[in-house]
Amino acid sequence: MAKKKPRPRAPSDEIEALLWPRSIAVVGASANERSAGFEFVQGLQKVGFPGPIYPVNPKLDELLGLKAYPRLEDIPGTVDFVMSAVPATAALDMVEGAKAKGTKLIHLFTARFSETGRKEGADLEQELRRRTSEAGIRVIGPNCMGVYYPKAKLTFDPELPTDPGNIGFLSQSGGHAYRVIGRGASRGLKFSKVVSYGNALDLNEADFLDHFAQDPDTDFVAAYVEGVRDGRRFFDALRRVAATKPVVVLKGGRTDAGHAAASSHTAALAGQQTVWRAAVRQAGAIEVGSINELIDMLVMFRTGGLAKGRRVAVLGGAGGETVEAADLCQEAGLELTPIPPEVREKLRDDLPFAWDWIGNPIDRSILEWGRSDAFGIIDLMAADPIYDAIIANVRGIEHALSRDDDGKTFRETVDRVKKLATENGKPAAVVMGDTESREESRWKAVNETRDELAAAGVAIFPDMERASRTMGRFIEYMTDRQGRL
Amino acid sequence: MAKKKPRPRAPSDEIEALLWPRSIAVVGASANERSAGFEFVQGLQKVGFPGPIYPVNPKLDELLGLKAYPRLEDIPGTVDFVMSAVPATAALDMVEGAKAKGTKLIHLFTARFSETGRKEGADLEQELRRRTSEAGIRVIGPNCMGVYYPKAKLTFDPELPTDPGNIGFLSQSGGHAYRVIGRGASRGLKFSKVVSYGNALDLNEADFLDHFAQDPDTDFVAAYVEGVRDGRRFFDALRRVAATKPVVVLKGGRTDAGHAAASSHTAALAGQQTVWRAAVRQAGAIEVGSINELIDMLVMFRTGGLAKGRRVAVLGGAGGETVEAADLCQEAGLELTPIPPEVREKLRDDLPFAWDWIGNPIDRSILEWGRSDAFGIIDLMAADPIYDAIIANVRGIEHALSRDDDGKTFRETVDRVKKLATENGKPAAVVMGDTESREESRWKAVNETRDELAAAGVAIFPDMERASRTMGRFIEYMTDRQGRL
Repeated sequence: MAKKKPRPRAPSDEIEALLWPRSIAVVGASANERSAGFEFVQGLQKVGFPGPIYPVNPKLDELLGLKAYPRLEDIPGTVDFVMSAVPATAALDMVEGAKAKGTKLIHLFTARFSETGRKEGADLEQELRRRTSEAGIRVIGPNCMGVYYPKAKLTFDPELPTDPGNIGFLSQSGGHAYRVIGRGASRGLKFSKVVSYGNALDLNEADFLDHFAQDPDTDFVAAYVEGVRDGRRFFDALRRVAATKPVVVLKGGRTDAGHAAASSHTAALAGQQTVWRAAVRQAGAIEVGSINELIDMLVMFRTGGLAKGRRVAVLGGAGGETVEAADLCQEAGLELTPIPPEVREKLRDDLPFAWDWIGNPIDRSILEWGRSDAFGIIDLMAADPIYDAIIANVRGIEHALSRDDDGKTFRETVDRVKKLATENGKPAAVVMGDTESREESRWKAVNETRDELAAAGVAIFPDMERASRTMGRFIEYMTDRQGRL
Repeated sequence: MAKKKPRPRAPSDEIEALLWPRSIAVVGASANERSAGFEFVQGLQKVGFPGPIYPVNPKLDELLGLKAYPRLEDIPGTVDFVMSAVPATAALDMVEGAKAKGTKLIHLFTARFSETGRKEGADLEQELRRRTSEAGIRVIGPNCMGVYYPKAKLTFDPELPTDPGNIGFLSQSGGHAYRVIGRGASRGLKFSKVVSYGNALDLNEADFLDHFAQDPDTDFVAAYVEGVRDGRRFFDALRRVAATKPVVVLKGGRTDAGHAAASSHTAALAGQQTVWRAAVRQAGAIEVGSINELIDMLVMFRTGGLAKGRRVAVLGGAGGETVEAADLCQEAGLELTPIPPEVREKLRDDLPFAWDWIGNPIDRSILEWGRSDAFGIIDLMAADPIYDAIIANVRGIEHALSRDDDGKTFRETVDRVKKLATENGKPAAVVMGDTESREESRWKAVNETRDELAAAGVAIFPDMERASRTMGRFIEYMTDRQGRL
C-alpha cells in the first residue's frame, strides 16, 4: 500500500459540528430490506432524524415514503451529510455529486478498496482521498458502518436502541460497533456516540480519541483498533483522553494470524504486540483481549463505584462454587479478607450454628436450614469499611420460584441483590448465568431479572471467571490511577 | 483434625456391587418438598428404582405413597443401601440401625462434621468412621449428594436427566456434581455415573478413580477434588486411569483463599498448588481452572474427533469477529494455516471477487453479496487433509429467520453446521452465543437450536475465547498423548 501523507487533523469541535447535519442523502438507497441502503434510510426515520432524508438511486421513485432522486445533483438545496452504499466503482461519481451539493461529511459503507489487497482497490482509495481532500469534504470510512449518535438522531441500523448514554466507542470494525451496542444494551450499557471508521481514509482513531477527550456527553471511552495511521499521534491522543476518562482499548490483529485477518478486513497496518501493550498501559488506558472483556470492563466502570483497595466481600454461591469463587478471586489479584470479629458478633443471634466458622466467600449451602440468610451476612460485610468491593454469585436465584408463594421470595431476593449492588457506594459485581432449568418460565424469569438489574445499574456477569477477572483489572486500574494522581 | 489410618482400599468391583442395591432406606425422609429427605425418595421413584424404597422417620406414616418406618430396625427384611438425611447428632443411631439391617453402603448427606472446624464435629466423624468400619459398612460422605447412576436407577435429585452416558465424574462437592450434570445436559453431556463423596470418611477419590479406570460404561473421566487423603495413592490411581481414558481434573482450593474455603466446605486438606499442577500433568490428566472449563473440555472430548495436529480451519464470523478469532486461536496455540491453492481454485467460479484474497479465518461479511456462501468454503477446507480441526463461529445464525421463507434458510444453515461439525472426522467446535435480539422468538430459536446441535453431538461454546482455548488444550493433550504412545 502506498504511504499516505496525513490530511490535516480535525479539531474536535469540527467533528461535533459535522455530526449535526441539517440534511442527509443516502446514495445507493435500496428497496431490498436486507441491504444497508435500505437500513440506513429506515434507521434514520426510526430514530427520528429531524431534517430531510434523501434516498438516491436512479431506479427508485420513492423509498419508505420519501421521494427518491436519481443523482445527488438532482436534490434541491444542500446536503450536509452523505451516507454512501454504492459499489466502489461508483464512489468517485458520488463524490462529484457531494461536491456539487456542498456536502461536509461522507460516510462510506462502500467497501472493496485497499482491504482487498489489490492494486486497483488501493489506487481507487487514493483517488477518493485526493478528490474529497480537494473538495474539503471529510470522510468516515470507507468500509465501515459510520455513526451511531442517538442524541443527534443518527444511526446505521434501525434495530439499535435509541436512548443516549455516556460511553463513547470508536471501532475500526462495523460489526464490533454493532455488537458492542447490542450486547452492551443487554448489560445496561448506553452510548453517547459510536463511530465505526473502517479504512480510516481521512478521519481516524486519533481524531475520534481527541473528540471523546473533550466531549461533555462522554464519561467512558472504548476503542477497537486494528491498526493506527500515526503511532505517535495515536498514543498522544490516548494519553490525553486517559488522563481524564477511563479508556478501554482492544487491539485487533495483535497476533500474526490476527494481523493477517485485519489486513483483509480494514487494510490496517498492525503494530508489534508487546510494544503496543506496553504503550497502551503507559498511556493510562486498559488493554483487553476480546469484545467480551471490553464490554465486561465497561459494565464494571458504569457502576460508578470507587475502589480504594482490593479487599473483597464475596457471596460465593453454594458449596464447591464457594471454593471456586475463592480460587478465582485470588487468581484475579483480589484479597478475601476474613470476616472481622465485630461483624461475626452481629451474626451470633441469627446464626448460632455457623456465626463463628462461616467464611469469606460465604457458602450459601451452610445457611439454607438456618433462620438467617446469606444476604444478611453479605449486607453486613458490604457495609463494613474493611471491604473495598463486593462480588455476589446469585446463580440459581430462580430456584426461589419453586416456593409456593406467588414469587414473593424470588421478588424479595432480586430486590436485595439490587440493593446490595447499588447502595453501598462500592464497586459490586453480580454473577447470574443462564438457568440450568429446562423450564421456559425459569428461562424467562432469569432473562427478565438480568435486564431489570442491568437497567438499575447493576454490573451482571455470566460467570465467576469474568466477574472476578474484571473486578481485579478494574481495581488494579483504580488504585494505579489514584497512585498517579 | 486427627490423622486417620486409611481403611482398606475398595476393589473396583466392590464399588460396582455396592451400587446395585436390592433395597434402599432414606433415613430422615421428610414431607418438606424442599428437603433432601423428600427429594431422595422422590428422585428414586422418578428414576424408577426397581426395589423397595423405605422412608424412615418416626413422625411419618407414609411418604409419596410409600409406607414409612419409625426406625431402620422396624423395616422388614434387609436394607442394602441407606441414604441418610438425619442431623449429625442422629448419625450414630442410624449406623446402629443399618448394622441391624445388614446394610452394605451408607451415603451421608448428613453434614456438620469435621468441615465445621469444631472438635465435636471431628470427634463425631471419627466415631462414625470407627463404627461403620467395625460393622463392615462402606460409607460415601458425609456432607455430600452421593450417587447418580442412571443405569442402576440411582439418583439424588428428581430433576436430573435419567438417560445414561459414558462420562464418569467424581466430585468432592455435591453442588458441582449437580451443576456438572445439569449444565452438561444442556451441552449434550451424559454420564455413566457421578459420585459426590464430600468429606471422604471412607470411600475416597482414589477408590472412585480406580473404579472408573475399569468401568466398561465410562469412556471419559472428570474429577473435582478439594483435597486428597493419600497423595501417592491418588496420583497412582490418576496415572492408571489416564493411561486408558481422558481425565479432566479440577482442583478446588488451589489458592490460599480457596484452600480456606475448601476446609470449611469438605474439610479437605489442600495440597501445594504448583506441585499439584505438575503432578496432574505428569500423570497424563488435563488440569482445568473452573467448572466451566471442566465442562468445556468434556464437551470437546465427547465429539470423538482425533486431532493429529494444530492446523485449524476457522469460520471467523463477520469483520472484526474474524480478526478476534484469529488472535484468540493463535493465542490458544492453534495454527491458522492459509487456504491452500487447490482449495482456492475450487472457489474461483463461485467467488470471482474474493477467491484469491479470502483468508483463514473466513470473514463472512465479505461473502454476503456473493453467490457462494461461507459454508461452501469451510466445507472445502474441512475436507482438505491440510486441516486438523475446525472452529465455526455461527453467532447470529438466527438472523436468517428474518428472511421471508418460513425459516427455510435458517433450517438449512443449522443442518450445514451439524454436517460440518459431525461429518468430517475432525474435532470441531461451534461458537453459538445468546442472540443479541430482544425478540422472544429469536431467543427460543437459538436455545432450541443449541439443544438440537448438542444432542446431535456438536461441541457448542458460548464464545470464541472458550472455543479456542478448549480446542488448544484438547489438541495439546491429543498430540502429547500420541507422542507418548
